[in-house]
Amino acid sequence: MFESAEIGHVIDKETYDNEVPALREALLEAQYELHQQKRSAVIVLINGIEGAGKGETVKLLSEWMDPRLIEVRTFDTQTDEELAHPPAWRYWRQLPAKGRMGVFFGNWYSQMLQGRVHGQFKNAVLDQAINGAERLEKLLCNEGAVILKFWFHLSKKQMKARLKALKDDPLHSWRISPLDWQQSETYDKVVHFGERMIRRTSRDFAPWNIVEGVDPYYRSLTVGKILLEGLQAAINTPKVKPHSITVPPLPDPIDGKSLLDCLDMTLRLDKDDYEEQLITEQARLSGLMRDKRMRRHALVAVFEGNDAAGKGGSIRRVAAALDPRQYSIVPIAAPSEDERAQPYLWRFWRQIPARGKFTIFDRSWYGRVLVERIEGFCAQQDWLRAYGEINDFEEQLHNAGVIVVKFWLAIDKDTQLERFQARETIPFKRFKITEEDWRNREKWDEYRAAVCDMVDRTSTEVSPWTLVEANDKRWARVKVLRTLNDALQAAFEKRDRHDKKHKK
Amino acid sequence: MFESAEIGHVIDKETYDNEVPALREALLEAQYELHQQKRSAVIVLINGIEGAGKGETVKLLSEWMDPRLIEVRTFDTQTDEELAHPPAWRYWRQLPAKGRMGVFFGNWYSQMLQGRVHGQFKNAVLDQAINGAERLEKLLCNEGAVILKFWFHLSKKQMKARLKALKDDPLHSWRISPLDWQQSETYDKVVHFGERMIRRTSRDFAPWNIVEGVDPYYRSLTVGKILLEGLQAAINTPKVKPHSITVPPLPDPIDGKSLLDCLDMTLRLDKDDYEEQLITEQARLSGLMRDKRMRRHALVAVFEGNDAAGKGGSIRRVAAALDPRQYSIVPIAAPSEDERAQPYLWRFWRQIPARGKFTIFDRSWYGRVLVERIEGFCAQQDWLRAYGEINDFEEQLHNAGVIVVKFWLAIDKDTQLERFQARETIPFKRFKITEEDWRNREKWDEYRAAVCDMVDRTSTEVSPWTLVEANDKRWARVKVLRTLNDALQAAFEKRDRHDKKHKK
Repeated sequence: MFESAEIGHVIDKETYDNEVPALREALLEAQYELHQQKRSAVIVLINGIEGAGKGETVKLLSEWMDPRLIEVRTFDTQTDEELAHPPAWRYWRQLPAKGRMGVFFGNWYSQMLQGRVHGQFKNAVLDQAINGAERLEKLLCNEGAVILKFWFHLSKKQMKARLKALKDDPLHSWRISPLDWQQSETYDKVVHFGERMIRRTSRDFAPWNIVEGVDPYYRSLTVGKILLEGLQAAINTPKVKPHSITVPPLPDPIDGKSLLDCLDMTLRLDKDDYEEQLITEQARLSGLMRDKRMRRHALVAVFEGNDAAGKGGSIRRVAAALDPRQYSIVPIAAPSEDERAQPYLWRFWRQIPARGKFTIFDRSWYGRVLVERIEGFCAQQDWLRAYGEINDFEEQLHNAGVIVVKFWLAIDKDTQLERFQARETIPFKRFKITEEDWRNREKWDEYRAAVCDMVDRTSTEVSPWTLVEANDKRWARVKVLRTLNDALQAAFEKRDRHDKKHKK
Repeated sequence: MFESAEIGHVIDKETYDNEVPALREALLEAQYELHQQKRSAVIVLINGIEGAGKGETVKLLSEWMDPRLIEVRTFDTQTDEELAHPPAWRYWRQLPAKGRMGVFFGNWYSQMLQGRVHGQFKNAVLDQAINGAERLEKLLCNEGAVILKFWFHLSKKQMKARLKALKDDPLHSWRISPLDWQQSETYDKVVHFGERMIRRTSRDFAPWNIVEGVDPYYRSLTVGKILLEGLQAAINTPKVKPHSITVPPLPDPIDGKSLLDCLDMTLRLDKDDYEEQLITEQARLSGLMRDKRMRRHALVAVFEGNDAAGKGGSIRRVAAALDPRQYSIVPIAAPSEDERAQPYLWRFWRQIPARGKFTIFDRSWYGRVLVERIEGFCAQQDWLRAYGEINDFEEQLHNAGVIVVKFWLAIDKDTQLERFQARETIPFKRFKITEEDWRNREKWDEYRAAVCDMVDRTSTEVSPWTLVEANDKRWARVKVLRTLNDALQAAFEKRDRHDKKHKK
């Protein structure tokens, strides 16, 4: 893997000086074209051996290219805010938009490599991280990103010489390299585990480029050229979607019976029961949210449902129980321009609550497999892969202590008609009904099938769906609150058991 | 995930009887069409809860369809032969050829699930297995397979009732279900870890189908219809290759210097040294192969090289050291009809030696990224993904104790010319030179670039490449033997250290 990056690649100054002007021009041109097209984001990952010229190269690239279109990010120590979120959150929030370029130092690979080198975990856990990286990159590439991964390499001998030279050079002596790099054991481990990482994540859609770092001319010109080719490929690749799916997925149940049919739509609460139970559950929610165990969790509630099923009313009853500083409500409509310039999960990742907090999504990432699927806003292969991507996403949240509670508020077709008609006649409700609602209603059966698929594919142990019988608004509101409370309580108790076991 | 397979799906007998004839006809027709086309293999994986009708359904499918085109495989207990090979070997050898259908009981999922349920390993190791399954399936799909995964489900209550009914039924009472299924703890674990497995491997290219198993009519008709759709999709999907690669991979080193340039092609041995060293290394190989530690390993040697580089001669010197029962030599030419009906790695998997044995490949799976790449025998995306697939393959071998030693025998262009000319004039060598050799020679530079890419991408810690300076045949032969011996010895010693550590 590293052999040909230890053979002493060299470019003489003259060649370098001759080639750089044309390269710079081409890089700039490609950069502007990429920016014009706004079709791909370019993500550059910088990894490798200490002293191999990572920093110098990135500095040079910023000089060669238009730095306004480049975002250089370092991810060394995590901020408080980052520590309060799932690990991938810090990367998602820094993703470059389409048309731009992000250079990531200290990215996901550095994290896992450091952890393994310092013995914080073993290979099986490293492999989990490797697999996670592969999935993330696959998703980003499917969403139009171009990922260029660079490993700046030095042989052990080269590294030692270079660290010494840097130390002796007054211009560089302030750059004290991390102590442990002085030890050859660290080098061996970095190369050993780095090789495992590179081997397993060098995939056709995002291969690694291993660059020998000794000679700055060679190094810089190599990286510049690879980058140029990557930019040009991003510009010139026709936007043909891969078409390799041969399995027709998600057949409807042949007896025509779905989970939605199993709901007892007559369930209801009378006014007194409702008021009593509502107050009880609201008080319970208030208490649970202030429980000190909440500090190790965050809460996400997803509200999806038929039009006019009462999502808004349910959300208000949840909010009413809480201090406004504890929660935020995120209404999801068609994506904004900024959001369209990112992978579809991006706008949800940025709204994921920090520990102790609660985010309510009024519609959500499930739009991908509902409205986008049915209206044809995304290609079939895009929504087909979304089930898996969403499960991965929610599993990451779960692993970080985020409790994800998902509601489908179901009403029957007649109830919807009544409510639509009522909305049209009651003045203060008229803004709530549009032509689009009527059009969606015509696609009732399609939506129904999509909902069943969605629940079948994404109701997981880490994040199950709750189907809510919502013909009766009172019943629905209480069931929503109770489900939230039960989920919180279950998570707290699970954690208690875990703590107890580990104390023993 | 399992919710909608616990709601009591039922089909009445009349509907069933009405639908089956047309379904059978359509299944048969699709099956023959698939067989005619010989473009896809269909792999059906059968998993799920004990008593959910797995066996009955497969039996029924064999009745409905032409059983001559279906291979039903069970993978419960491993044979001695299977135990002596890497774990995936047993699946590879049973893959159905294109145009045929394989039904796999007790497949890779059953293995990992059982291991996890019985506490043989933890989640991190389960996740490694899950990831391995995903990679295998991705490879198979890329090679034209259609994978249909069925999970036959029962709720816990349904399962208990069904096991009881089976026991009381004299027709079925001989079918004693595994004892541990009687315990509800087992059920809970199977569902819990099964969910993790299904969640993570339900991907667009091979999603899971979860089928409620209570009602035989519902179950059979559902599976039949999904299978029919799968077969039809396999038949009708246009053979368009996915085109999603935007990154131009594998740039040549900009200083034009490659590993091959670093070889000292003047290295040679005089006759006396050669004979002495040859005998020494041959004796060493003979001893190492008879070492009792060899019983825990197998040895694979891959010989690639320029035409006329002396692969045959080197192989003969290796073989000369050994008892013919210990090794086999596999010459790789263009694939046979049977081999073309399988994924490209299949014909190599079947030749992987059992523990204690040694297989010498005269040319190998690297044809994919050498001749197939250069002659355009496979599409760019196919050879691009091959680097990763090959690394996965060799890692599986390594993990099972197979030592993989890979040689590239390099000669320079002049030496090749001399040898070609000599072959044309020496009568007993004339069969060794063909028009094709001359044509290949014209593509010298292309092959050279492909070799460098290959070494850069697949020389891994678990299976490094050895470049052999082969202008002097004596030097080459001794280096080959010595490298093999060093690899064997290193593997033995690593294992010794491992054993010692674990004894402490």
